Amino acid sequence: MMQTPLVLTNFLKRAESYFARKTIISRTSPQKIHRLTYGQWAKRTRRLADALSKLGMTRGKKIGSFAWNQHRHLEAYFAVPCSGAILHMVNIRLSEEHLIYIINHAEDEILMIDVDLLPIIENIAPELKTVKHYIIMTDEDTLPETTLPNALSYEDLLAAADENYEFPEDIEEDEPAGMCYTSATTGNPKGVVYSHRGIVLHSMMLSMSDSMGISERDVVMPIVPMFHANAWGLPFASVNVGATQVLPGPQFTSAMQEQEKRERDISSLRAICCGGSASPTRLIRTFEEQYGIPYIVVYGMTETTPIVALSNYMSWMDEWPIEKRIESRAMQGMTMAGIESSIINDSGEVPWDGETMGELRLRGPWISHEYYRDERTNDAYRDGWLYTGDIAVRTEDGFIKITDRTKDLIKSGGEWISSVDLENALMTHDAVLEAAVIAIPHIKWQERPLACVVLKEGMAASEEELLAFLESQFAKWWVPDDVVFLDEIPKTSVGKFLKAKLRDNVTEIYPKLASFV
Amino acid sequence: MMQTPLVLTNFLKRAESYFARKTIISRTSPQKIHRLTYGQWAKRTRRLADALSKLGMTRGKKIGSFAWNQHRHLEAYFAVPCSGAILHMVNIRLSEEHLIYIINHAEDEILMIDVDLLPIIENIAPELKTVKHYIIMTDEDTLPETTLPNALSYEDLLAAADENYEFPEDIEEDEPAGMCYTSATTGNPKGVVYSHRGIVLHSMMLSMSDSMGISERDVVMPIVPMFHANAWGLPFASVNVGATQVLPGPQFTSAMQEQEKRERDISSLRAICCGGSASPTRLIRTFEEQYGIPYIVVYGMTETTPIVALSNYMSWMDEWPIEKRIESRAMQGMTMAGIESSIINDSGEVPWDGETMGELRLRGPWISHEYYRDERTNDAYRDGWLYTGDIAVRTEDGFIKITDRTKDLIKSGGEWISSVDLENALMTHDAVLEAAVIAIPHIKWQERPLACVVLKEGMAASEEELLAFLESQFAKWWVPDDVVFLDEIPKTSVGKFLKAKLRDNVTEIYPKLASFV
Repeated sequence: MMQTPLVLTNFLKRAESYFARKTIISRTSPQKIHRLTYGQWAKRTRRLADALSKLGMTRGKKIGSFAWNQHRHLEAYFAVPCSGAILHMVNIRLSEEHLIYIINHAEDEILMIDVDLLPIIENIAPELKTVKHYIIMTDEDTLPETTLPNALSYEDLLAAADENYEFPEDIEEDEPAGMCYTSATTGNPKGVVYSHRGIVLHSMMLSMSDSMGISERDVVMPIVPMFHANAWGLPFASVNVGATQVLPGPQFTSAMQEQEKRERDISSLRAICCGGSASPTRLIRTFEEQYGIPYIVVYGMTETTPIVALSNYMSWMDEWPIEKRIESRAMQGMTMAGIESSIINDSGEVPWDGETMGELRLRGPWISHEYYRDERTNDAYRDGWLYTGDIAVRTEDGFIKITDRTKDLIKSGGEWISSVDLENALMTHDAVLEAAVIAIPHIKWQERPLACVVLKEGMAASEEELLAFLESQFAKWWVPDDVVFLDEIPKTSVGKFLKAKLRDNVTEIYPKLASFV
Repeated sequence: MMQTPLVLTNFLKRAESYFARKTIISRTSPQKIHRLTYGQWAKRTRRLADALSKLGMTRGKKIGSFAWNQHRHLEAYFAVPCSGAILHMVNIRLSEEHLIYIINHAEDEILMIDVDLLPIIENIAPELKTVKHYIIMTDEDTLPETTLPNALSYEDLLAAADENYEFPEDIEEDEPAGMCYTSATTGNPKGVVYSHRGIVLHSMMLSMSDSMGISERDVVMPIVPMFHANAWGLPFASVNVGATQVLPGPQFTSAMQEQEKRERDISSLRAICCGGSASPTRLIRTFEEQYGIPYIVVYGMTETTPIVALSNYMSWMDEWPIEKRIESRAMQGMTMAGIESSIINDSGEVPWDGETMGELRLRGPWISHEYYRDERTNDAYRDGWLYTGDIAVRTEDGFIKITDRTKDLIKSGGEWISSVDLENALMTHDAVLEAAVIAIPHIKWQERPLACVVLKEGMAASEEELLAFLESQFAKWWVPDDVVFLDEIPKTSVGKFLKAKLRDNVTEIYPKLASFV
């Protein structure tokens, strides 16, 4: 076979030849909506590549983006890797300390900044050691006032650049194309580098029927930010097949909350895909039964480009009662074609019984093999696998169900208790807004669960009531020993519970503990 | 990213873990239908690999198959390449001379033969220089009487083999997996070798929504033979996603003819895919309008694994009148994601006007880069492209329409005339069964078209009538100078018109010509 490499340049060329008439709709501010064709977008992308090259972008250099989901970010998604450089999609939600760390650690030389995010970068600019140019993505003709040294206007640069800029033809598929940092529970964020090959294969997977089946006919709106795990790779896959893209800018919406506030006709939606934390079965059922819209749970991590599994209805599930089908839909689903998964505990591979827990490992051509210049690589990447740190079970259908994080799992008397299952159950109680369950040390059982609960405003529930609520649903030994009521649960930059912080401060939030240990 | 190779072993492992319950239905003779699960199939495949290894199959050796579409052939499709050996799918329709040539040229060491094809191999066995073992695929407990030396029973070998046979873990993605020979218009057939990588990427493509979208829910019946261009790669793609497979054995059916003979309920058909020669728009329209079944024209060659293009309705065609849509459906369509196409003539790339003809070139990771040990490689593989020998135009939508073969094109007064367009038009005439249009030399115009026509039994049409029929549809200078009536058009082993033979014998079929030249 020909040695033609799997590189993103082919996606761009495909889009500009076959899909030049298709549309990208981009909102850069509540007031401003841009509509451009793929043809226009491709020319702007070539201009951006030319402009960045003139500013010193060469093969292997890192160029940072600090932006919402909008067309200029999509231009950077291709202009940088198709030139052989590496796009570092900086997570805007990190703390200033972490932002400084990752931009310096990645050695970003140019930083492209969405105009409304400018103050964040202005604050930290003095600490950024490698950035030589700041490019501001503004719709206005003049740059906003800024303390950034030598700030440049994105549009001015494009106006002065060549729309016929030619990308290099010799990029190899294993060359790096992009990078993201993933926040760690302790310490600095960890960098993950994506190769052209990984992104191309991941994009093909996203267009396969048993995955999301992204096609030319689709209109794809990534709510997941483009600064978080490649926006699930949706922008890449959409360009490859010429799907219409809607990039909603700074204001992300929560579809369900909007719909509850004011009902709209959403019957044109082909599917809703949801990842991150567990999706409540009630939500899935509402979308599927009330609105007739498939609700697909996806699973992945920054380390995995990111999608590795997805909960489709397999043909043999058609005969199942609706409750069982929805239950399978809420799982992380089947590993996609191309990815191998393995769930192991001390006895080896867990049986496919839906009950036995183990740690999920992953292997495949879009799974990273290391953290970028980081010795924590050795913890996660072993024996040719990525150890995800997720605790999972596997059903008899081969579906993966994440039950916990390794770090959050509670080991009581040698048995494992899933904190996530307990949390999800607690959060179905009418009075409970949020619940996190953590392990506390125990003299006899090694560890026991403690429930940390935030009540809804104006609602009340006693410890006894909540524990009784759990007792009706779980084995006796799973039920937490105690409940503490908090004002809020600490969270990570992407809104996940930061249980490490709860554990660190456990003697504060649960003073009783001091008398036990 | 991890360096995990794209190899077929992953497909097998995926099918046996996730789709063990799914079914393969296989007909080995009019009397015998086998139903086996993917679980059983995978065990039999491992047994076959063990058995073949015991007979001397090692990495890089060629193992031949000589069989219809049935489960044992599907076992060979994986047992051989997953062991690191190469499955040579021998085209049973070749002449004895060509069969001898290709089996010797490929150096097949083991030959697996479908029982009803035994006489063909018995006839040529004395000439086969490298074959050490003949394995007969029979349903019976005892082998049929045969003149083959040391004939072995497929089922006996499997019974004595290990169903837990482990495939090697170190196969690299560029290693060869299979090979087919394509018949040449002159000389011996030319061999094409497929790599694991090529077949894996091709299979992913077949499952993409804008291609065939093959999914777990599909029931796939390849009518295209497994000895011809990998059966379009359908068996590989089906195993990867766990689609139910129906392998119809020795008796292929022509769906439309069967349907016309006796109407059945075919509403469960998701799509009909058709390749090879051009599909008449009337046939497409019947399936789409009368039966509501999408009719997808696919395009490919043995050299290209084979699918490279496909005629889907793009979103912007929804507003078109039905005639224009059906017309686009009859074309070879848009090059699939991953493949680059280019149509060139003496002025370079042809404009996308649907009229200007040029030769179609292809490039991509499942396009072969050579003919196996064959100096004709230099004719077809140049400048990093495969020159297909197909003359095509490109529409403004980027759709490819094959108008002729380079060798069949008629060059009249410096302009090109498509023999295929004339043939298709002639074959819509009620009295015409088959029509082939060839070039004859001409003193003024260099070449002029001559129509060779076979009339339907019991039907009549004069030369004048046929030419008038064409005059109403084509520019005057396209209309053939003459019509000759024949009893049959000579055909290749796969049923294509062998126009070279008509040209070679032109003075016989068209004695008038002798008086011109």
